[in-house]
Amino acid sequence: MRLSKLAIIGPGLLGGSIALAVRRFSPETRLAVWSRRVEAAEQVRASGLAEISSTELAPVVEEADAIVLCVPVGAMPALAEKIAPLISTTALVTDVGSVKTSVVAMLSPIFAKRGRFVGSHPMAGSERTGLDAASADLFQNAVCIVTPDAGTDASAVADATQLWQMLGCSVRVLPPAAHDEAVAAVSHLPHLLAAALVNFVCARQPDSLNFCGNGFRDTTRVAAGPPEMWTEILRANREPLQKSLRAMIDSLNEVLTLLNRDDEMPLRQFLARAKTARDRLRKQ
Amino acid sequence: MRLSKLAIIGPGLLGGSIALAVRRFSPETRLAVWSRRVEAAEQVRASGLAEISSTELAPVVEEADAIVLCVPVGAMPALAEKIAPLISTTALVTDVGSVKTSVVAMLSPIFAKRGRFVGSHPMAGSERTGLDAASADLFQNAVCIVTPDAGTDASAVADATQLWQMLGCSVRVLPPAAHDEAVAAVSHLPHLLAAALVNFVCARQPDSLNFCGNGFRDTTRVAAGPPEMWTEILRANREPLQKSLRAMIDSLNEVLTLLNRDDEMPLRQFLARAKTARDRLRKQ
Repeated sequence: MRLSKLAIIGPGLLGGSIALAVRRFSPETRLAVWSRRVEAAEQVRASGLAEISSTELAPVVEEADAIVLCVPVGAMPALAEKIAPLISTTALVTDVGSVKTSVVAMLSPIFAKRGRFVGSHPMAGSERTGLDAASADLFQNAVCIVTPDAGTDASAVADATQLWQMLGCSVRVLPPAAHDEAVAAVSHLPHLLAAALVNFVCARQPDSLNFCGNGFRDTTRVAAGPPEMWTEILRANREPLQKSLRAMIDSLNEVLTLLNRDDEMPLRQFLARAKTARDRLRKQ
Repeated sequence: MRLSKLAIIGPGLLGGSIALAVRRFSPETRLAVWSRRVEAAEQVRASGLAEISSTELAPVVEEADAIVLCVPVGAMPALAEKIAPLISTTALVTDVGSVKTSVVAMLSPIFAKRGRFVGSHPMAGSERTGLDAASADLFQNAVCIVTPDAGTDASAVADATQLWQMLGCSVRVLPPAAHDEAVAAVSHLPHLLAAALVNFVCARQPDSLNFCGNGFRDTTRVAAGPPEMWTEILRANREPLQKSLRAMIDSLNEVLTLLNRDDEMPLRQFLARAKTARDRLRKQ
């Protein structure tokens, strides 16, 4: 894919990191960044991160070979409606939303006759947010899931894959619904557990927070993520997430009975199974 | 407290780290390390970690000013019975067990007429184990809880506090039962949640492990800990842990209903509350 101009919609952690990674890995690409707020556009301009920094969409997206939506999921449809008439029919359009069924359902029709849209989810978040937290390395070794549906142009999948690989991601292709089920399990459920654990300890054993070790810190780190963003993500992926959470509650009820058994083996096997799986993860 | 000779019973992660930290912060102290296995004693000897390395208890504990039991909780009583007749009546005896009610109940009577025993729990574990993972820095900024009961000699509390502070810990004093309730919440429950989450994802969404991000890795890191050790810890602290786990399951059922609400505010407040508490933790 030709990439003379890349448009980034939203200069947050992900948008900023895409810009920094493009600078490093594709220095000949011109970068254009759209910001909602004047102050953010100023910050982008001052940072020298992009050739074009504007709160207007036209100068950012016109003639762009690829456009990446890096705004909250709820803000995407309205922006997409404004972007669609401005871009070339061959432009690649993708997004970085953490849920895909709803995003793809909303954006696909908007770009049906303009641009080639395919959803993406680079799994490279952080509990930190904003341009100041952006890093050219954010995507190194991260997985990006590209989520075509039945109507997606195959060349859009190929080009989005190439773009994310260029930024450092390893790419997987999954239908939106399969993506949402998977992230409900490995991302959204862990977020809920972390938040519930923090709130539980604060409510029942507040003093014990003064002497928690690294285990508690690691287990709950994601709970420091932005509540507005996560509320939106968790609600957008509500159905797969509730399914996961219900099944997790069932598992925890089974663990309760394991603790009660006279025989220590079932608990030990439960922990050993988890260790084996977690060790495999570490080695990847 | 005079510390011309310190005896360490068990050269694992904690025992080894105590030795390394004593070398750094109290270089005039002679170190004596007891190992169960000949190979481990050889390794200690080869490492130059201690002046005395033996599989015999007498040369290790005799004339020691302080003795620290760094073996699994289940191995403590039998070793304590052998150690008690060998030590001076004024020797400080403590341990590093992760549960305290049962350990203190078992060890206090054994050292009632020999040595001054008080329980300790340095909260400085790691999912790694053994002497190779030991570090002089393990206790820096870690909390150590010292757990006197009604019969504990006040000078033992003072001396154990001084010892752990010298190694780098910040020390808190709590009765054994209060300790066990607290660690059930901030250590044992997180461990169970991490293991349950890994097993859940492996069982229901095994493919998704291939693209989990840092959030999942952090949330489940502790599940890589040694299953034998954790089985013993979790079972030894079974009652407070079951209480915590039951309450956590109740919380998760409440989260299920939050996800179902039309109004997004309750979920957002739940996440915001967790973020505020978790941010406070980060700043400490």
